[in-house]
Amino acid sequence: MQGNLTVLGLGAMGSAVAHRLRTAGYTVTVWNRTAAKTAPHTAAGAHAAPTVAAAADAGDVVFVVLLDHASVREHLDPAAAHLRGKVVVNLVTTTPNQARDTAAWAADHGITYLDGAVMAVPDMIGTPEARLLYSGDENAYAIARTALDTLGTAEYTGTDPGLAALKDTALLAAMDLMLMGYLQAIAMMRTAGATAADTAAEVEAWLAAMLPHGREIAAIIDGAAYDTGGQSVDFDRHGLASLITASREQGVSAALLEPHRRLLDELAATGHGASDWPRIIDRLTVPR
Amino acid sequence: MQGNLTVLGLGAMGSAVAHRLRTAGYTVTVWNRTAAKTAPHTAAGAHAAPTVAAAADAGDVVFVVLLDHASVREHLDPAAAHLRGKVVVNLVTTTPNQARDTAAWAADHGITYLDGAVMAVPDMIGTPEARLLYSGDENAYAIARTALDTLGTAEYTGTDPGLAALKDTALLAAMDLMLMGYLQAIAMMRTAGATAADTAAEVEAWLAAMLPHGREIAAIIDGAAYDTGGQSVDFDRHGLASLITASREQGVSAALLEPHRRLLDELAATGHGASDWPRIIDRLTVPR
Ligand SMILES: NC(=O)c1ccc[n+]([C@@H]2O[C@H](COP(=O)([O-])OP(=O)(O)OC[C@H]3O[C@@H](n4cnc5c(N)ncnc54)[C@H](OP(=O)(O)O)[C@@H]3O)[C@@H](O)[C@H]2O)c1
Ligand SMILES: NC(=O)c1ccc[n+]([C@@H]2O[C@H](COP(=O)([O-])OP(=O)(O)OC[C@H]3O[C@@H](n4cnc5c(N)ncnc54)[C@H](OP(=O)(O)O)[C@@H]3O)[C@@H](O)[C@H]2O)c1
Repeated sequence: MQGNLTVLGLGAMGSAVAHRLRTAGYTVTVWNRTAAKTAPHTAAGAHAAPTVAAAADAGDVVFVVLLDHASVREHLDPAAAHLRGKVVVNLVTTTPNQARDTAAWAADHGITYLDGAVMAVPDMIGTPEARLLYSGDENAYAIARTALDTLGTAEYTGTDPGLAALKDTALLAAMDLMLMGYLQAIAMMRTAGATAADTAAEVEAWLAAMLPHGREIAAIIDGAAYDTGGQSVDFDRHGLASLITASREQGVSAALLEPHRRLLDELAATGHGASDWPRIIDRLTVPR
Repeated sequence: MQGNLTVLGLGAMGSAVAHRLRTAGYTVTVWNRTAAKTAPHTAAGAHAAPTVAAAADAGDVVFVVLLDHASVREHLDPAAAHLRGKVVVNLVTTTPNQARDTAAWAADHGITYLDGAVMAVPDMIGTPEARLLYSGDENAYAIARTALDTLGTAEYTGTDPGLAALKDTALLAAMDLMLMGYLQAIAMMRTAGATAADTAAEVEAWLAAMLPHGREIAAIIDGAAYDTGGQSVDFDRHGLASLITASREQGVSAALLEPHRRLLDELAATGHGASDWPRIIDRLTVPR
């Protein structure tokens, strides 16, 4: 590979990215707030820059792998003149609006901006299992594409620079709730002496079998009629009440299940007890 | 098959059970509160009994498939004398304590009691995919076993009559939270114009890949040391705050994610910010 790339930030993720780009054949310049972390990289053939500005000058594409949105703006804003005309690929985890904010700042300074979201741990960087979402400037994606492909499986999600972060956070939210499901089941089964390992194995098999139900829920939501005659809000309230009672009887908090109940109660109170239960999605987008 | 079986209740599930037992070769006597529902069964060769007492007299094993715990006790209590010496298999969905309560009542009346939980929809009855959990009297399980095996895959979970209901409700709680994960992701991605079907397909693939993480969580919980150096409570608070902010920025309620945040905040406030995050399971069993 030919090309000069810069990596700002050498934490766990930045180090993995810099390492991978270097072994892929690129000339890599690194910068890190704590300069000592550049040593293993320079020993392996990378260049170290003393400042963000110098690092920016050295690369055509600048990868940003700092901690969060605040640290990105803290270091990029003063170096804007050095980033002009370059492609900046921001791999820092942010919210969609933070990504849009940085994109607007970049546009103001003649910087071609691509926002990224890394759906992988550092060990996975460089393998196809590492999934990296990108959104923003299509041209930036085209220019950086060959380098991006060395990091993992790249997916361009659209020109709205917030899209990669949106998809990232949406999928992470789904995972978070699934993991809370493991905890709830493990807590309940522990009261009967079951090990967490045994319960987790049960939950894993059960959820794997139940995962396809998401498609039915999606079909109801896309249809938006909420009258397919499937499980109703009232039916779901009844079932959920049993789960909550069962949990409490065993001395386990049902706190994780309560928001679902409140959403159902709100629907019932507004005359939607007979609707298909996925109608609760509407309550998630009601202005409050 | 030889043997006289009784089925109380001919709703969707009771009808499927009565049908399957009859086609398996048993002599089946049915009773239903609304007598008209017995017609298709008698037309197919079942006997109909006019009262619960008469239905109980006709069978050696009595399957109960009414609506809920209250309807079970409403109809079984007055017929106790007719159930004495019989095996009662209660397939009604209940909480663990309700099952224990009915088991204690049965013991007082010389009734051999097995509690069941049907983890299947009526269409699946009679196939190996239908999973039925049982707990309570081991002898009742042995006596009824041949008939139970015709309904689906039978699993005996222990002598505590509440165990089948506990496992049922624990697995359903895990599924409930997973389905809430689908809704949260769909609601967030809808704000960028994504169809629910597209988001559900993404979530399904992502969660399938993430399911095995339950094993790591379980290992930490069984170890109970909460110091493996994996993701900490503080790290998880930071990540979850991003998800909540991202959701709200898009105009989507983060209500479903809030209990997790509260549990983490409680841990941080009690000095456990550096603990492995699965320690939140302890907060689920704190007396409140
Ligand atoms: N690790 C993962 O599994 C993972 C997965 C997906 C996404 N990500 C995302 O990747 C990004 C980097 O994560 P990481 O795992 O590499 O984190 P990390 O190991 O904690 O490293 C953090 C990096 O950010 C730098 N930093 C922090 N605050 C700074 C500031 N105010 N000014 C300048 N530099 C600052 C640190 O520099 P010092 O060395 O000077 O402290 C270090 O280079 C984060 O946005 C994270 O959410 C990580
Ligand atoms: N359907 C499923 O997918 C499914 C899955 C797993 C477990 N289950 C459990 O199986 C049980 C039966 O469910 P189902 O789907 O068959 O329900 P269903 O179709 O609504 O039928 C309810 C049955 O209960 C009877 N019933 C209701 N209240 C009664 C009362 N007070 N006294 C006497 N009988 C009464 C009804 O009699 P009438 O005909 O006179 O109304 C009918 O036979 C429930 O505990 C349910 O949770 C169902």
